[in-house]
Parts: sequence; structure tokens; C-alpha cells
Amino acid sequence: MDQIIERFKKLDTTCVSDAMDKIGIECSVYGIKPVQSGEKICGRAFTVHYAPCGAVKGTVGDFLDDVEPGQVIVIDNAGRDNCTVWGDIMAKTAKKYGITGTVIDGVCRDIPAVLECRYPVFSKGYYMRTGKDRVYVDAVNVPVTLSDIQVCPGDIVIGDDTGVVVVPQSRAEEVAEIAENIDRKEQEILALVAKGYKLKEARAMTGYHHLQTKEK
Amino acid sequence: MDQIIERFKKLDTTCVSDAMDKIGIECSVYGIKPVQSGEKICGRAFTVHYAPCGAVKGTVGDFLDDVEPGQVIVIDNAGRDNCTVWGDIMAKTAKKYGITGTVIDGVCRDIPAVLECRYPVFSKGYYMRTGKDRVYVDAVNVPVTLSDIQVCPGDIVIGDDTGVVVVPQSRAEEVAEIAENIDRKEQEILALVAKGYKLKEARAMTGYHHLQTKEK
Amino acid sequence: MDQIIERFKKLDTTCVSDAMDKIGIECSVYGIKPVQSGEKICGRAFTVHYAPCGAVKGTVGDFLDDVEPGQVIVIDNAGRDNCTVWGDIMAKTAKKYGITGTVIDGVCRDIPAVLECRYPVFSKGYYMRTGKDRVYVDAVNVPVTLSDIQVCPGDIVIGDDTGVVVVPQSRAEEVAEIAENIDRKEQEILALVAKGYKLKEARAMTGYHHLQTKEK
Repeated sequence: MDQIIERFKKLDTTCVSDAMDKIGIECSVYGIKPVQSGEKICGRAFTVHYAPCGAVKGTVGDFLDDVEPGQVIVIDNAGRDNCTVWGDIMAKTAKKYGITGTVIDGVCRDIPAVLECRYPVFSKGYYMRTGKDRVYVDAVNVPVTLSDIQVCPGDIVIGDDTGVVVVPQSRAEEVAEIAENIDRKEQEILALVAKGYKLKEARAMTGYHHLQTKEK
Repeated sequence: MDQIIERFKKLDTTCVSDAMDKIGIECSVYGIKPVQSGEKICGRAFTVHYAPCGAVKGTVGDFLDDVEPGQVIVIDNAGRDNCTVWGDIMAKTAKKYGITGTVIDGVCRDIPAVLECRYPVFSKGYYMRTGKDRVYVDAVNVPVTLSDIQVCPGDIVIGDDTGVVVVPQSRAEEVAEIAENIDRKEQEILALVAKGYKLKEARAMTGYHHLQTKEK
Repeated sequence: MDQIIERFKKLDTTCVSDAMDKIGIECSVYGIKPVQSGEKICGRAFTVHYAPCGAVKGTVGDFLDDVEPGQVIVIDNAGRDNCTVWGDIMAKTAKKYGITGTVIDGVCRDIPAVLECRYPVFSKGYYMRTGKDRVYVDAVNVPVTLSDIQVCPGDIVIGDDTGVVVVPQSRAEEVAEIAENIDRKEQEILALVAKGYKLKEARAMTGYHHLQTKEK
């Protein structure tokens, strides 16, 4: 079992984002949201890079057979919103393969089928126009970007209704520890408020305002 | 019965978009999405064009009495998002008249009522500011545009959770046939994957990568 | 009991927007939408202004202890979408305090928790990156803006699935009366259509096209 993944599964994107603030690395992916509300994903990145077709063309999506169960597919389509790189065949096959979910810097299609099979997809929106003959896969498992956040193969990708964050695997242990501490402090604040303390008091007692402040 | 409409009712926007790729005509409407998830519409277009009020003013929405049951109202409000051209009275009356749905290049209002009466509306968003005294209907049943896609009266308009596509009535038969073939091939791929074939193999066996490629 | 609030609770954002058109004051907040569909809020504004951190820093959110039950918190974060000013601790504490809801010209986080505790939040979207060390509260209960609409402390804020409108307290009585009249006329139109009148006739009989027209 991947112990660090098990720890991150208990954390949400908010706590992880605060922990990454503390170590001073950007992790919060802008504008990529779940297609289906209520999904939570956490796994290691299998990265895919798409490029526009020109004189050179290629294929889309055949990498799927190489993804391992539990991984999160991270597709860098450079934010293109005029053609799609994910659809019903991909979603149903990925689900069958035991893949955790897909995060796209771009758009997907076949929303009715994606919703129906409940395979988690996070994207910048949806559209029906195919990527075939428009873009092609030019690399897999290379460093890619999601809205200006770097994602390397094996990095930890976490998604929930607030969006997606990425933790570099080299810092994962440290980030998990900070995030767990922030989560604990926030639970303490809520417990104090429930007991009748003012929010301001509860926060002062737990050092809330600087939980995520970057250390000098 | 309108046979071609019955055939398109069995197809989704994705297959139709691919089929239109094959004949080389753009059909995928950008940025117009269902107000209510889970709706599916298919019918012939009754088109409406709005223009801004100036020295000349006019009325909004009175065309509704002229729409036939089963038609889809297509409103070209030039993408304006600062005033609305659809609301609760329109939705409830259209529902009563047996109209299939409304697609707006613009925004609508009265979202609680629209959701409650379950009349399908596809739009670029919502806002409450009325179009009255801001825009007026200057033509009905003329060619209009939805996000740069041409829609003529009688064209076939299909909408689902992925968005909206438009098929020119002069090409409808041909497009239905291509789309039905693509749909069949995609079902074959899923059946092969279910049997244990790799996705790449299943796609190669069915010619997936070029189902929608434009013929020279 | 706050009689005028009770009257506005029976009106939706659409009718109020039309009534404000009639008196010639903009009230329709652009681009701020409910996090959770189906919520309706109505209450007096407690306003909060955020400014960017620089050499001068400050705290976030401690104003919550000063908000009265029934009030609506209006946060002017200048539309910033790169850091958040509302999250799970704020939502759960506000709920406990009996606050009606929060409207943000900006973004919030902790969407799973906000949805779970069903505290109404209206915002320009969501993201996980904290506002801590990025923005701070520099004033409360001063005039603020929501997408270019002025909100003064004590103004009436109404939100539903269509969005948010603001009524200046000095004009509240007058606006309520106009909005109630518009609502009545619109019910009449629907009743006439139900009886079999054409929409155009029903509208002509009730003066629909000019219900909201500004008086000279």
C-alpha cells in the first residue's frame, strides 16, 4: 500500500493548499473543476501531453492501456477549450481499468455518459468537438502543466469539489505532516466555537492566522 | 411523424458533431449549456433575432404564440449577458404550448421557476436584468447565429448535457447516417473492451481514429 | 420583526430587478451565483471590505463575531479570484450564529463543507488558495461594491438561483410596492394563458411590456 497516498486521502484540497503555502510552492490549479459534484480523488499522476495537429498528426487516447490502477491521469491540453481529449469510451474504459480519475487542462465531452458511469473527471468545461485530427498525444510521463502548476509523473494529485491541487512527490511527507496539523487546528477552532467561544478567541488560542504562513 | 427527427432523437451531440466533422461543416455551439442537467432536446428550429433598443424600440417574446409544438426556439441575442430574453412566463407558456425547448445565445432569468417547471433551456448563463427596453425582436424565422454557428428555420437542433449542435436540414439524412455508423462503431469498441481487448486493439479493429475524418 | 424584510422575502430577484429599473437605479449584481442551487436569502447587509496585503498586513474573517442574526454578510474582495475569503470555519460558525448568508465579490473555498452544512454562499466561483497573507479586512460597515453595484450597511440583499440584487434601504418601501405590483401582473398573465388566452393578448391586457419602464 502507498502509505503517503493513504494519508492524503484523509485531507482536502484546502488543507493541502495551506500546507503548500507554508513551504512556498504553488499547488492550487486555477479553473479546473469536477464535472460531477461530490467526487474526491487522490492518486499519483500519469501525465499526458497533447500538441496541435499540423503537417504532423498522431492519435489520441491510446495511452490508456498503460495507466496503472489507482493512478490519476493528468492531461495537459494547454487549456484548449475548442476540442476535447476525453469522452465516454475513455471514461468507461478507465473505470474498468481501476484508474482513479482524470484531470484535464482543457475540456471533455459525453457529459451524460461521464455522469452516468460516475468516473471522476476534472476539467475546464465541456464541449462536443473532438480532438481527433485537431490535437495528438506527443508525450506521456513527462513533466506537464495544469494552469501553470507543474505536474511530474508520480506527483500526488488531489481533487474535490473545490478543485485540484498537486503535491511534488519529493515534498509529500513534509506537506502531509503540515496539512494534518492545520486540519487538527481547524477542528479545534470548530470545537471551541461549539463550546461557546467567540471565533476570534478560538482562532487566537490556536494560532489560526499564521497556520499557513511561510517560514522565513 | 418527422422521421429524421426521430432518428436524431436517438443520437447524442457528440456523435452528431463527429458526423458533421466528416462532411466538413461546423455545428458545435460554443458556450451554450443546459440550465438544468439531464435534459435532452431535439427538434426543428424556430429562429428569433434580437437587436438593441435605441431610438427605435419594440417588444420581446410575443413570437411565442407562433411557435409550433415540437419546435426548438433559437434566440440570437448576440451573446449579450447584460440583459435577459427568457424567463418564467415564457418557460411556463412554452411548456403549455408543447414546445421542445429554447436555446439562447445570451442569458435567461427566473432560474427557480425554470427549474421547477422543467422546461429545457440552454443558455450562456443567467442574470435577472430584463431585456425589456434594452433589446427587441426585429425578425423571426430568418437565418441567425449561435456562437458563430448558422441556424436556419427548420434546421435540426439537438441539445444534451454536453451542449448544443445544429444540423442543416439539407444535409440531415446524410449526417444521420454517418452519426449512426459512428455510434455503432463506438458501441463495438466498448463491447470489445468488455471482452478483454486492450483499448488500442479495439480501436484499431474498428477504425476509430478516422471515423470522423473528413473525406477528401 | 423587520416588516420590509418580510415583504421582500416573498419576492424574487427578477421582480425586484424590474422594480429597480422603474426607479432607475441599477441593482442587478453581475456574475455572483449561489454555490448551492435552491437557496434563497433576504436580509440586511453587514458589509466587509478587503484590501491586498503589502507592507501592511492584517487579519481575515474576525468580523464574524459582530454580525447579527438575520444579516447578510457582503464581502467586497474586488472580484479577486486568486485567493479566498470564505471557507468551512466561517460557514459553520455563521450558521451557528444564525446569519442568513454570505455574498462575495470574489471566491470561496471548502465547497464540500459549505454544501454539507447548507449555509448559503453566493460567489464568483471557488478556489482553494487562502486569502491569509494575501488580503486583509481593512473596513467593516462602510459602503462597498458588488460587481459595480453599491451596497451600504443596512441595504436589503436578496439572492436566489438567478443571482443577487441590492435594494437601498432609503427606497425599500417604494421598491417593494412596485415589485409586488409586477408580481401580481405576472401572475395574472399566467392565469390568462392557463384560461386559453394567447400570450400576446394576456400581456396586452396587463400592460406587460411597460411594467418596469422608467417613468419620465
